[in-house]
Amino acid sequence: MTTAPLPLPGFDDVMRAAERIRPWAHRTPVLTCAGLDRLAGARVYFKCENLQKVGAFKFRGATNAVFALDDEAAQRGVATHSSGNHAAALALAARNRGTRATIVMPRTAPAVKKAAVAGYGAEIVFCEPTLAAREAALAVVVERTGATVVHPYNDPFVIAGQGTAALELLEEVPDLEVIMTPVGGGGLTSGTALTVTARAPGCRVIAAEPAAADDAYRSLREGRIVPSGDPQTVCDGLRTSLGELTFAIIRRHVAEILTVGEAEIVAAMRVMWERMKVLVESSSAVPFAALLAHPGEFAGRRVGIVVSGGNVDLDRLPWQA
Amino acid sequence: MTTAPLPLPGFDDVMRAAERIRPWAHRTPVLTCAGLDRLAGARVYFKCENLQKVGAFKFRGATNAVFALDDEAAQRGVATHSSGNHAAALALAARNRGTRATIVMPRTAPAVKKAAVAGYGAEIVFCEPTLAAREAALAVVVERTGATVVHPYNDPFVIAGQGTAALELLEEVPDLEVIMTPVGGGGLTSGTALTVTARAPGCRVIAAEPAAADDAYRSLREGRIVPSGDPQTVCDGLRTSLGELTFAIIRRHVAEILTVGEAEIVAAMRVMWERMKVLVESSSAVPFAALLAHPGEFAGRRVGIVVSGGNVDLDRLPWQA
Repeated sequence: MTTAPLPLPGFDDVMRAAERIRPWAHRTPVLTCAGLDRLAGARVYFKCENLQKVGAFKFRGATNAVFALDDEAAQRGVATHSSGNHAAALALAARNRGTRATIVMPRTAPAVKKAAVAGYGAEIVFCEPTLAAREAALAVVVERTGATVVHPYNDPFVIAGQGTAALELLEEVPDLEVIMTPVGGGGLTSGTALTVTARAPGCRVIAAEPAAADDAYRSLREGRIVPSGDPQTVCDGLRTSLGELTFAIIRRHVAEILTVGEAEIVAAMRVMWERMKVLVESSSAVPFAALLAHPGEFAGRRVGIVVSGGNVDLDRLPWQA
Repeated sequence: MTTAPLPLPGFDDVMRAAERIRPWAHRTPVLTCAGLDRLAGARVYFKCENLQKVGAFKFRGATNAVFALDDEAAQRGVATHSSGNHAAALALAARNRGTRATIVMPRTAPAVKKAAVAGYGAEIVFCEPTLAAREAALAVVVERTGATVVHPYNDPFVIAGQGTAALELLEEVPDLEVIMTPVGGGGLTSGTALTVTARAPGCRVIAAEPAAADDAYRSLREGRIVPSGDPQTVCDGLRTSLGELTFAIIRRHVAEILTVGEAEIVAAMRVMWERMKVLVESSSAVPFAALLAHPGEFAGRRVGIVVSGGNVDLDRLPWQA
């Protein structure tokens, strides 16, 4: 969406984001579950961003970006393209700021996410589900409105905002040995890495992604951003590629990226529902699925997992035929 | 299960219960949800006992009863009959105390609840789904083991334990105007009433039950315990009748019992999943359903709801054909 070089955010930006979003975002609970601990052979602390406003951590980054705008820019509104959660997050953040959001969404986005975005009062512009179509539609919106584009992840304010979830998690559970996130575009992972590096340098950040959409894994291995093709995964939130900012932070601060199969993701999602009693979307089950798939690596450890979102279509649960 | 007159518990018993269960029970989060507030036209604070251990408030009462036993009695074990959540709760409480539980369960109990009870290491004795069959089977167990029977609700320790959820809720949100619970056997409702009467005397306790199982409503109106027949309701946790203890407390301290239809319950359950991102079982959706069905009564109020449990069979969700 942008070609100008962007400054790499740091932990001070995360701290500023925490101040900025405090009046707007939930401080989400950290849940533990003895049943899931037994399954995992580890002590797992779930930072429940599925219970965040709009049902996803994305509200943190979007709020930080929108409230960092000066008044003049804020008045022209904000815009983005997004497959879902960032769209809802930006829509609500804009409404809270008293301005408007225009959202370019693929026609194929889940119904529940389209409804959420419309419910927050944003204008929706539908497009074909390709990156090229999204960017073209967004350019038209910007031309028309002068809106500021808030990228879903490759934006220093967005990254810093996402890092506030791990900040709260470490405030409640300081002695974690590992913190895991799912990785799609890398906003949550890179924000988490900024926080953990500064606040808990002995703690490892491990990202997890579907084996069917392992572009982040391959990017880290090859030392360059490997673009995501059209991956076939149940995790609609993790189909995107890394951005320059998120990749730069991840390659520096993330210990490892684990991949996991589709069946394992769906099974982990279901057992999280059954035992922890919270709705987690498929993308959010990926870290716990990866943990279960690599028991040796986590045995006896104190592991934090950022549960990224809880927006699911209740008429189309992935374990149902 | 017992014919001897039992002492009526008071708020001091709730305070003792809070001490007794603290090492074992979760302090569950109180969640708010702007989307549900808008629907309700009220400010609603959900005390999420669906996130309690075993997925239900029942763990509070069972733990209080089991840990109140002297060592000699504890060694002989505990037993009960229950359609589900109390069974799992008693099983885990017994395991925590280092003793065993024997659970008489109807064959028709949901699979997820049977599995939970077995998973906590209790012995299960199956019986036909009638009160007579349950009581006969339980008598055999007691004869054989000398176990102490812990009634699901008509027990002063159980009632006092259930009252600790409202105690925590009022600690976090002291100025509630109404606290709502579902009412089946009345353990949660009467325990809540003990707490609210002592701690927030200006706050009204309102119970809610399915119109299809309105025995508590009729009991209050007629001034005697109207037994529940074989009510046809989606709320498998609310099919029981009040007991003498719970009725005595409820008629003294509960302001009102509201009833609500099956379709409204299922709709409320679904919208709680969609907006609040937590699993609530059908019984637990009854208070919010009643609130939505009586908007005039709650407009602009600060309402606490004890969300009683989150144990659902994910293969048989009530909004699916």
